[in-house]
Amino acid sequence: MHSWIDGQPGSAVNLQNRGLAYGDGLFETIAVRGGRPSLLQRHLDRLAMGCRRLAIDLDVPLARDELLAYAAQLGEGVVKLMVTRGDSPRGYAPAPGAPARRILQNSPLPAYPAAHAEQGISLFDCQTRLARQPLLAGLKHLNRLEQVLARAEWQDPAYAEGLMRDAQGLLIEGVYSNLFLVRDGVLTTPELSHCGVAGVMRGELLDQARALGIEACTAELAQADLQQADEVFTCNSVYGIWPVRSVPALKLDWPAGPLTRKLQAVARTLLDT
Amino acid sequence: MHSWIDGQPGSAVNLQNRGLAYGDGLFETIAVRGGRPSLLQRHLDRLAMGCRRLAIDLDVPLARDELLAYAAQLGEGVVKLMVTRGDSPRGYAPAPGAPARRILQNSPLPAYPAAHAEQGISLFDCQTRLARQPLLAGLKHLNRLEQVLARAEWQDPAYAEGLMRDAQGLLIEGVYSNLFLVRDGVLTTPELSHCGVAGVMRGELLDQARALGIEACTAELAQADLQQADEVFTCNSVYGIWPVRSVPALKLDWPAGPLTRKLQAVARTLLDT
Repeated sequence: MHSWIDGQPGSAVNLQNRGLAYGDGLFETIAVRGGRPSLLQRHLDRLAMGCRRLAIDLDVPLARDELLAYAAQLGEGVVKLMVTRGDSPRGYAPAPGAPARRILQNSPLPAYPAAHAEQGISLFDCQTRLARQPLLAGLKHLNRLEQVLARAEWQDPAYAEGLMRDAQGLLIEGVYSNLFLVRDGVLTTPELSHCGVAGVMRGELLDQARALGIEACTAELAQADLQQADEVFTCNSVYGIWPVRSVPALKLDWPAGPLTRKLQAVARTLLDT
Repeated sequence: MHSWIDGQPGSAVNLQNRGLAYGDGLFETIAVRGGRPSLLQRHLDRLAMGCRRLAIDLDVPLARDELLAYAAQLGEGVVKLMVTRGDSPRGYAPAPGAPARRILQNSPLPAYPAAHAEQGISLFDCQTRLARQPLLAGLKHLNRLEQVLARAEWQDPAYAEGLMRDAQGLLIEGVYSNLFLVRDGVLTTPELSHCGVAGVMRGELLDQARALGIEACTAELAQADLQQADEVFTCNSVYGIWPVRSVPALKLDWPAGPLTRKLQAVARTLLDT
């Protein structure tokens, strides 16, 4: 199925597009099954929040309608919704009032090995550190060179994800996932006020855990917290939850524990319906 | 004159382009007069350095030949040479060995008010801080949201540029220029090992100053250094040098001093020939 640009079939953007020139935009990666986008409202909320913080003038209801129509035609797959500040001549100054450009692309649902979800994964210990930039923290923006550098650190398929820390060594996230730790029955995920992407599945799991009576919080987490964790998992809005079984470089390992399994079932339900 | 993509006329890039998806690329902004790119070797050297650090597989001699041919056809203007890691399916992992994409665009030489160079400029004191990321420091890469946010802080044309600091409050650069301070006849520009763009004109001026017997160095600079400076100027490879006359928010002002004027003449010669 073709990509759409501003609601019309299209496969290319103008060289003046500020997404290309400056990474001046945002994106959402959305699982689609049965013609419906999963976690739709959370994706739209994060996108709208990002547009407010970057002062990008997006017609959110229009983006929502296009996304729904695109997902219905696609049926099953992953939809990437990209929003850029539109086109402008050379120069950092945004053209005031320029409408955002809405781009919809699709790819098949990724064929991850079933073992990732069943037995769990090993994390590569990335050396690339995330810079601390509160103005961009939490956003899924188009400035993603740090993730490109981190993902290029390993080719060994034994590692399904990489562990990323910030410049102070605090645990932040995976390269394309968020990170959760369980200790004494309490669920914790790194606080993302200085860097990191506030994942849609992360937000949903925090709420769902609390609804199930599980204590769940965000906090500054360091390597010591990883050492003391009873369970560790990663999550995103495409694959749900993967138990983390080890970080070989740190000589750490964990079982795929009961709280991880419980929330994994919750995530599966969220993505399947 | 049309843009070129990989040596052919073109005005759009595929949605799979990693420059658009992740800001996964670099650019150079080059003044062209009489059909020749100014400071050609320095631009190519910085581009090649960026490609090495980001592991982007650019054919630099080919990029050089295309740039020379494009500049010759253009005659006069500004050429933007953009290099992206090329296209890839969704995902941060670079496709190994994918050739870089070379994009050449042009715009007229900007019509800055003559007063900027003659009387000097005022700097807006930007609140946007540059994150410290040594892996990207010095490069003119395509992740430029910090510059977009900083440039959006002011609309008043009384400010020709903005002063940018890093997360620790150290002076780094302008939004689209580098910064120099003069004190007791010594020329100093911020050290850029944690953030900032190592400008082509900045590098050239450091060398040219030394060749003229002027002591010139890079250093960590803070606001106190600005207060103690005898002269301040900004530079880039399109406009050359602008004396900085004031930072009104900091209640600081300077004359357009003799060393600034001397180097301004040097920069003008570099750009005119």
